Amino acid sequence: MLTDTDLQELAAIVGAENVSTRGPDLEAHAVDESCIPPHQPEVIVWPSTTEEVAAILRYANARRIPVSPWSGGSSLEGNPVPLEGGILLAMYRMNQVLEVREDDLQVVVQPGVIYDDLNKELRHLGMFFPPAPGSADVATIGGMVANNSSGMRAVKYGVTRDYVLKLTVVLPDGRILTLGGNAKKSTSGYDLVSLFVGSEGTLGVVTEITLRLLGLPEQVGVAVAVFDTLAQAADAIYECVRYGLDASALELLDAATVHATNVQQGLALRVAPTVFTEFHGSDTVVEEGLAFFREVCEDHGCADFQVATSPEERERLWSAREEAHESMKQSHPGCLMISGDVCVPISQFGKMIAFAHETSERFGLQIYAFGHAGDGNLHTEIIVRREDAEEMARGMRAGEAIVTYALELGGTIAGEHGVGYLKRQFLRQEHGNAVDVMRSIKALFDPNGIMNPGKILPPEE
Amino acid sequence: MLTDTDLQELAAIVGAENVSTRGPDLEAHAVDESCIPPHQPEVIVWPSTTEEVAAILRYANARRIPVSPWSGGSSLEGNPVPLEGGILLAMYRMNQVLEVREDDLQVVVQPGVIYDDLNKELRHLGMFFPPAPGSADVATIGGMVANNSSGMRAVKYGVTRDYVLKLTVVLPDGRILTLGGNAKKSTSGYDLVSLFVGSEGTLGVVTEITLRLLGLPEQVGVAVAVFDTLAQAADAIYECVRYGLDASALELLDAATVHATNVQQGLALRVAPTVFTEFHGSDTVVEEGLAFFREVCEDHGCADFQVATSPEERERLWSAREEAHESMKQSHPGCLMISGDVCVPISQFGKMIAFAHETSERFGLQIYAFGHAGDGNLHTEIIVRREDAEEMARGMRAGEAIVTYALELGGTIAGEHGVGYLKRQFLRQEHGNAVDVMRSIKALFDPNGIMNPGKILPPEE
Repeated sequence: MLTDTDLQELAAIVGAENVSTRGPDLEAHAVDESCIPPHQPEVIVWPSTTEEVAAILRYANARRIPVSPWSGGSSLEGNPVPLEGGILLAMYRMNQVLEVREDDLQVVVQPGVIYDDLNKELRHLGMFFPPAPGSADVATIGGMVANNSSGMRAVKYGVTRDYVLKLTVVLPDGRILTLGGNAKKSTSGYDLVSLFVGSEGTLGVVTEITLRLLGLPEQVGVAVAVFDTLAQAADAIYECVRYGLDASALELLDAATVHATNVQQGLALRVAPTVFTEFHGSDTVVEEGLAFFREVCEDHGCADFQVATSPEERERLWSAREEAHESMKQSHPGCLMISGDVCVPISQFGKMIAFAHETSERFGLQIYAFGHAGDGNLHTEIIVRREDAEEMARGMRAGEAIVTYALELGGTIAGEHGVGYLKRQFLRQEHGNAVDVMRSIKALFDPNGIMNPGKILPPEE
Repeated sequence: MLTDTDLQELAAIVGAENVSTRGPDLEAHAVDESCIPPHQPEVIVWPSTTEEVAAILRYANARRIPVSPWSGGSSLEGNPVPLEGGILLAMYRMNQVLEVREDDLQVVVQPGVIYDDLNKELRHLGMFFPPAPGSADVATIGGMVANNSSGMRAVKYGVTRDYVLKLTVVLPDGRILTLGGNAKKSTSGYDLVSLFVGSEGTLGVVTEITLRLLGLPEQVGVAVAVFDTLAQAADAIYECVRYGLDASALELLDAATVHATNVQQGLALRVAPTVFTEFHGSDTVVEEGLAFFREVCEDHGCADFQVATSPEERERLWSAREEAHESMKQSHPGCLMISGDVCVPISQFGKMIAFAHETSERFGLQIYAFGHAGDGNLHTEIIVRREDAEEMARGMRAGEAIVTYALELGGTIAGEHGVGYLKRQFLRQEHGNAVDVMRSIKALFDPNGIMNPGKILPPEE
């Protein structure tokens, strides 16, 4: 429990106007986009500088006060939820683009910069930061670094970690470190940047990020292929990946997901398993990619193939995929969605998505299945009524069955959403005694366990 | 000092035939390809299994015996040299390709597999592991993982770390861990794979490696552009990178390096700054790349542009670049080469290579300058007479000047050769107090300091 002295000390660091214990503020930072019940922090603190973050952590560490860093709040595994109360460190006002290093295709940002805003600013300079998370309009770069986010373009461009060159981080004891550097590659010392990326605020707080960027593609091509069966669609995707199709996106929606987007977005797509793809490159590269894709799809019995012929059509087709999550949500008012995010070796993706549908039948629950098929990354949304405790429990068991099956297929429990609170129970099943090493690393950086407690690591077994 | 009991215990673990204290064996493992003086180990041990490695480490850890893992011995910073004697853990007999997971474009290997051998085996299956270190014919996958090696193809394909999915590692206390997994992407727990890649055997020993692979390119194109001045060549390279040329190699040799390869390889290239490039892709992608490259080079006053029109010509042109290191070595019998490996932001590469030439004049030493220019990665070879202590000292100071200047330009002390013994003095200059964190991580994994002592981390300040 925080004392009045604590609140005064925090106010002395950031200014009284950047500290709040007001109910609506606490409520607004009590839960992310996941299905877990809200947990209110005791105080919200909005720092503006690295030095303020350092002073806050130093104080909290001395007083053993839990600190949960929070940026966009759009995560799906309870990642920033202040399970143990304490300080909610709201990073989203640190939202400046500090420097565009145009000559080197790099940008230096504070953690609160929103993904879409950054790319809008960079577009004028012919550059972009590629990972493209589903929540691009709200996800912050800080949150993306914390969760090693990715999304639709990971199949070609990789994940956030692949673009982080340099970080300023604050450790729980208040030390400020610079990790990494501005060179494109380096073999100088242990890779602490990669350790911090994806550590979900459990080791320290990232306050400044240098990203490498890419030049915008000359041309973009989009196509949609509709299949009679999910197995055909999955086989076509597998063949594309196996034989090196260089798509910048390779996405699969099941029929139910297409239906939801039709209804919510006013589209008239055929309600059947649908593969969305996108190519980046020169005119000929895009043409060659589309031709290869079409050939593979037709070999696998594609029933309906459509290439966007104008930017508007491209936008319209693509919006079906982009708005899928939102469409499902709107289709089930009063319901909770239990989000899934497994990733399996690409040869197993067909089995994985079939299993999701079997799970739907077995548990008597609606389960949407879709995702970044080109990476073997399956998302599921299990729909349960908000007030129905039995259905909620059944939904959680269905989700567990999907995760367990992904592990059986040699996959991972978390493709791109992180572990947060909801997946930590599976960590040892995936990593065995490597979890002990993770625990030691946590203890090394955060001996008092103040940083985002209850995340990633399961409670001591 | 090892006792007879130690030797007997080691022989009991791996068999007497896999332990040696013979002079020639000790001598053969006393120095890598760097310029440091030889340091002999007390015993060579050749393990065959992960379990044997675990038993050796457990024993050595209990007895506080230094253990230096060694695989190809082709490193350039003294990385595996047994500075403190003890056990030389020779990993190169663990050289089996354990499993080709063709369906998922993955391969599982032991650390002793040689890079070229692996790619020869994979070629039949239409796949390859791209990083392409300069010492491809002797470098082992284990050594590449330990040093996070890269090479000519990093500009398009990235470095070893980008391809390591899963590792079996043995910690100094004998624990065997599996890190990572078979999914293409994962956000499950701390990224211990990235921590181990590039840790140069200072945290533990890697005994099994799963790599992701790529499909072989349909077509390969090679071109060579000769410039009157180094500045023109560097400017052309910069413009290529800045405007997104998707080359699979973008290499620069200075005139002296071209001269050495001419003499040693019997070539007749014009003795002038020369840019080598290579493209991978479909016919049209390769053609487009070559056309773009030619245009940029001509804009920058390229004096002579040549495209290889046959595989033989491609091979012949490319060999000039591939044999550069060997050619310099052969050109200076009785001399030592002090190898440099800095990497700077790409906009600074022109300044960096000019500085290397200035350093040559200032110190009165021959310095070859060349490297992976597309990544900003400059290699230098400083030539000093083996028996001339003053010249050797002057050469080391010249090397230090180059490293220090790279740091001034925002670069790194080690682009792809690791820190080893020779670069550790610069670690704090590059990383500041992040070195303290690296030291804590070292102490966490290896509290007794037995693993490859004297590498990466400078002596306690």
